[in-house]
Amino acid sequence: MLSARMSSVVLVCAFLAGGSPLQADTPLPIMPLPAHMVEGTGSFPIDGGFQIVFQGHTEPRLERARDRFLMNLTRETGILHWPASSVNQPQFVINTAEPSAEVEQLGEDESYRLEVAPARVLLSAPNPLGILHGLQTFLQLVQTSPQGFAVASMTIEDRPRFAWRGLMIDAGRHFMPLDVIRQTLDGMEAVKLNVFHWHLSEDQGFRVESKVFPLLQQKGSDGLYYTQDQIRDIIEYARDRGIRVIPEFDMPGHATSWFVGYPDLASGKGPYRIERKWGIFDPAMDPTREATYKFLDRFIGEMTALFPDAYFHIGGDECNGKEWQANSRITQYMREHGIKDNAALQAYFTGRVQKLVTKRGKITVGWDEVLQPDTPKDVVIQSWRGQDSLAQAALRGNRGILSAGYYIDLNEPASQHYAVDPLESATVKLTSEQQSNIMGGEATMWTEYVTPETIGSRIWPRTAAIAERLWSPKETNGIDSMYRRLAIVSRDLEYYGQTYRSVSERMLQRMIGDVDSSSLKVLASAVEPPKEYAREELGNYDSFTPLNRMVDAVPPESDCAREFRDVANRIAIGKATPSDWQQARQWLTLWRDNDSVLQRYLPQSALTAELVSVSHNLSMAAAIGLSALGSLENRETVSPSARQGQLSSLKSLEAPHAVLLDMIVPGVEVLVAATR
Amino acid sequence: MLSARMSSVVLVCAFLAGGSPLQADTPLPIMPLPAHMVEGTGSFPIDGGFQIVFQGHTEPRLERARDRFLMNLTRETGILHWPASSVNQPQFVINTAEPSAEVEQLGEDESYRLEVAPARVLLSAPNPLGILHGLQTFLQLVQTSPQGFAVASMTIEDRPRFAWRGLMIDAGRHFMPLDVIRQTLDGMEAVKLNVFHWHLSEDQGFRVESKVFPLLQQKGSDGLYYTQDQIRDIIEYARDRGIRVIPEFDMPGHATSWFVGYPDLASGKGPYRIERKWGIFDPAMDPTREATYKFLDRFIGEMTALFPDAYFHIGGDECNGKEWQANSRITQYMREHGIKDNAALQAYFTGRVQKLVTKRGKITVGWDEVLQPDTPKDVVIQSWRGQDSLAQAALRGNRGILSAGYYIDLNEPASQHYAVDPLESATVKLTSEQQSNIMGGEATMWTEYVTPETIGSRIWPRTAAIAERLWSPKETNGIDSMYRRLAIVSRDLEYYGQTYRSVSERMLQRMIGDVDSSSLKVLASAVEPPKEYAREELGNYDSFTPLNRMVDAVPPESDCAREFRDVANRIAIGKATPSDWQQARQWLTLWRDNDSVLQRYLPQSALTAELVSVSHNLSMAAAIGLSALGSLENRETVSPSARQGQLSSLKSLEAPHAVLLDMIVPGVEVLVAATR
Repeated sequence: MLSARMSSVVLVCAFLAGGSPLQADTPLPIMPLPAHMVEGTGSFPIDGGFQIVFQGHTEPRLERARDRFLMNLTRETGILHWPASSVNQPQFVINTAEPSAEVEQLGEDESYRLEVAPARVLLSAPNPLGILHGLQTFLQLVQTSPQGFAVASMTIEDRPRFAWRGLMIDAGRHFMPLDVIRQTLDGMEAVKLNVFHWHLSEDQGFRVESKVFPLLQQKGSDGLYYTQDQIRDIIEYARDRGIRVIPEFDMPGHATSWFVGYPDLASGKGPYRIERKWGIFDPAMDPTREATYKFLDRFIGEMTALFPDAYFHIGGDECNGKEWQANSRITQYMREHGIKDNAALQAYFTGRVQKLVTKRGKITVGWDEVLQPDTPKDVVIQSWRGQDSLAQAALRGNRGILSAGYYIDLNEPASQHYAVDPLESATVKLTSEQQSNIMGGEATMWTEYVTPETIGSRIWPRTAAIAERLWSPKETNGIDSMYRRLAIVSRDLEYYGQTYRSVSERMLQRMIGDVDSSSLKVLASAVEPPKEYAREELGNYDSFTPLNRMVDAVPPESDCAREFRDVANRIAIGKATPSDWQQARQWLTLWRDNDSVLQRYLPQSALTAELVSVSHNLSMAAAIGLSALGSLENRETVSPSARQGQLSSLKSLEAPHAVLLDMIVPGVEVLVAATR
Repeated sequence: MLSARMSSVVLVCAFLAGGSPLQADTPLPIMPLPAHMVEGTGSFPIDGGFQIVFQGHTEPRLERARDRFLMNLTRETGILHWPASSVNQPQFVINTAEPSAEVEQLGEDESYRLEVAPARVLLSAPNPLGILHGLQTFLQLVQTSPQGFAVASMTIEDRPRFAWRGLMIDAGRHFMPLDVIRQTLDGMEAVKLNVFHWHLSEDQGFRVESKVFPLLQQKGSDGLYYTQDQIRDIIEYARDRGIRVIPEFDMPGHATSWFVGYPDLASGKGPYRIERKWGIFDPAMDPTREATYKFLDRFIGEMTALFPDAYFHIGGDECNGKEWQANSRITQYMREHGIKDNAALQAYFTGRVQKLVTKRGKITVGWDEVLQPDTPKDVVIQSWRGQDSLAQAALRGNRGILSAGYYIDLNEPASQHYAVDPLESATVKLTSEQQSNIMGGEATMWTEYVTPETIGSRIWPRTAAIAERLWSPKETNGIDSMYRRLAIVSRDLEYYGQTYRSVSERMLQRMIGDVDSSSLKVLASAVEPPKEYAREELGNYDSFTPLNRMVDAVPPESDCAREFRDVANRIAIGKATPSDWQQARQWLTLWRDNDSVLQRYLPQSALTAELVSVSHNLSMAAAIGLSALGSLENRETVSPSARQGQLSSLKSLEAPHAVLLDMIVPGVEVLVAATR
């Protein structure tokens, strides 16, 4: 609803900051941090005048990488033209020793060496993969200076710590259109991730065209699936970026959508319909009929031909076995064949399917559950259960990758993911040979609560922190440095095509209609989505539920709230600077007063009406914080009962409202607890 | 350069505002305003549950329009699924009487009728063009409410005032990639523009693949051209949106790029190189050789086959004739044939070329200059010289379209373009029959100072105001209503794929590097690019000059400065509200104090270093404004000499600094002049 013009004063919680001049301990503005770096003198200017020269091996992929590099450099600098200029200009030499494998292989040499000097850049690598990584490093190193854009002189020698650095996208629960996939691959390239794990079938949807079994997509996808041509395009697009594509077809559970077109595959009677709810469901493939394996043999034949990667993911998670137990033919089969329980029946199934995969020359990957006493040693375990579970697999001689700790759909802070090391296990000691079974890790983007619109802000920027964990040396682990660089990379990712920050602003504006969104942004900066699986308990969701609320618009982690907690902690331990005090007061005042402005508009839109209490609670918490701040500043004593009253008020504000956590409360609690 | 975390308080000049509840005079949030509208009772809910039903004529274009409509509705609301649901759901009926012409014709019936009621929408039109327009109207009418998204009940009967409502893009000076063209067509559809005029050749580049004369693009484009397949795709894309595509090949001047590959076409000796500077240049086609017409005959044959529209633009502007005068063979020819001057020679050329166009069954369009005493009546005149020039053509019996007044590259305010009516002429009185020769108008986006990155903020949102002038009744002319609706449309355009607002923010961040950009945004909100052709006098520009400065990042028109002027005017005439006074003080204080923060960072980046004086001047102007505001508030008298000193200080601040105008100065001048 349109009304009078106004303007308003907004607090922006800005991580890209500049209170003080260049700090001596400023880390390189890059993520993941390189393995080894030596600073030089001077800098290489980015002024549109340099020439890119290829030496050694060349191929069209490298030329495309150059074009993409120049396009992104243009976006970073606004400098448009890159004419092939005279030889006296500075040169950017790309030296590639040899081609890489026709189909990218796990463990190929991804190292590169980047020498930046005032008149010349030399990027060299054993094969194109290293060149691709080195170009991304260079892009991130571009900085403003009084003389213009430049990259400081330095020599970098870099290589990844782990060979498998992945991101999984669940295109089953919410279909993700091709532009989302391409945009994600662009972001992965920027942070040197090299495996795109494409979760392509779920209870809620079968997302690939099968020509052999067309009812899979015709009846199981609502029309939302990738054609085989589109799949091939994406594989090519990923290869251009040094990224392998690993398909996952989840079985025997999480497979309802298969059964809509092919009910005979299932263990129940059917008929089946595409599942619209979230959760673990009973339908499961029938492991006791030979027809199941005949179907899967042909299906795996078709899909292993479509996806060239050497690895093939068969899922295997969360099969509850209820359909098996309800089918007397299956229980009879189990008795006859001495299969003692559901786990054993699934192990039998996995063994059969694994042979079908092996027959096609591929290596099987599966979730934790596929690891059973008889599981062959060449099955790769993707662990969602934890580092210990992964270590157990490695101990046994199976290779594995870690996803536990990297579940980016759970809205945990980047620091939490960053602290998870694939090689650490509390309970299992591995020899270094056994450690080498652990190939890396994968961030997992499950999509119950994520749409094409919101997926960007769920993946980025936190996945860059996981990418660093998987690429950089183990010793690269400073949280403060990580967050400072993450802020810069978050901005850089916009140059490389990620739009999640502007999408988030657009969503907030949409919620409040034709009204200035400034006060809504202030509220948004103080809240976060609930963590882990709390959201599913706070509402009744299905495939059709719009994900257009505040909880969907805000990032999983509030920079503002984290900064406020840091300030509060410094105040509490007596290490605050005068600007910390001022900052805390400014923020708390803004949060306290924001409510009176915002309440006027919140009831006018269905999407903001639920925020009435959220805004009110923020104001209350901030008022308590201001009172505590005043007491601390004036060294006034606070009566124990008054403090207790405040703390219990705050405790009640910790509970989610409108599926949102007030992230200011913890900082305020610190301030109150610090009063005497 | 990364340094300490901070946050800052930013003024946002927000046009989407909500100080007061719904105003009685709130205009429909739509642009262009419909010709006729009657309000109903209740509203049609947008909740994902309605079904779109086609009646009457159907065609694939309508189905694609429906899919695009649903996608944009999803972006506007965040409501995802649109399953074909049960018949008890509300219905959205689209009734199309007949097909439109195979190739869209000028003057086809574009009318539609849109009836919105709580349980049903009926959109009907004589042909698909009206349906396309009606869908855009509906999208713009979607609003938030306490019950969710909805469109208020109403009946709209709508039709355009002018049949030719165009936007020209100059892809010659700066090549515009396909995604820019497509994005522009999306925006044109949203505001019901129906002609995309594609300026495809210039001194600086020849932008279409010719298979007959391949050296045109091979030597004349730096590799930046559209293939014929791409052109066909764009024509199809435009047709899907009810937009005709008219190509322009500028001749005989503005044609240097042709001569790089085909020097014999030219009147000079050559060799020719692609022009890198901006301006009017001497090279011109040789009108005296038959070979020129042979070439053009084959070329026009190829291009009229590629572009199906009935109209074909041959340019004809700004040929200075110097090459003709310098060539004795040409001057001799002129003498022999009684051609008295350059204008007559160009008229001869135009006449010959027009016959070649006519031979291919097309109608010739040209700029003002093609209108000469002998110009045939079926040549359409595009007037860049003014309304009088257009009226003269109409008087003579030539049809015409207006572009003078719609030059959006000149950075004029929307209100200025909005006030220009194609039918108004100060000097010529036309009969209504003569008036009917005036078919409409075209906004022109010349690209000397525009890149693919900045073109969005140059076109939008101001072009929506021009679109309204060309579509809506003449009586739709309230400036205040226009600006209020423009602010809403500007936001809506983001839902329809325009990214110019976030691009502008990205450019500001880029300028200042790894430092919080809040203070830079404050400065940006107070400045505008210089108007008309002032920029070319303020620097030395060519094709390679980066367009990444503040002048390129800020929109042509500052909402904030305009609002401040409005407030200052109300204060000056004694009609200010208390909130006006408070607002003025808040703004002026912010502008005054911003400089002290900003000066710390400006020297650190080459792109912000030039803003040192701009920021300082803004602070000075604001300080003068605050002083005047204080005098007015306290009814203090100001000595004539003090006031004169302030006014002359302000006068000196009117001059551009760093190619930027301080747009706060006029409002401050108003305040100072109002003091006693």
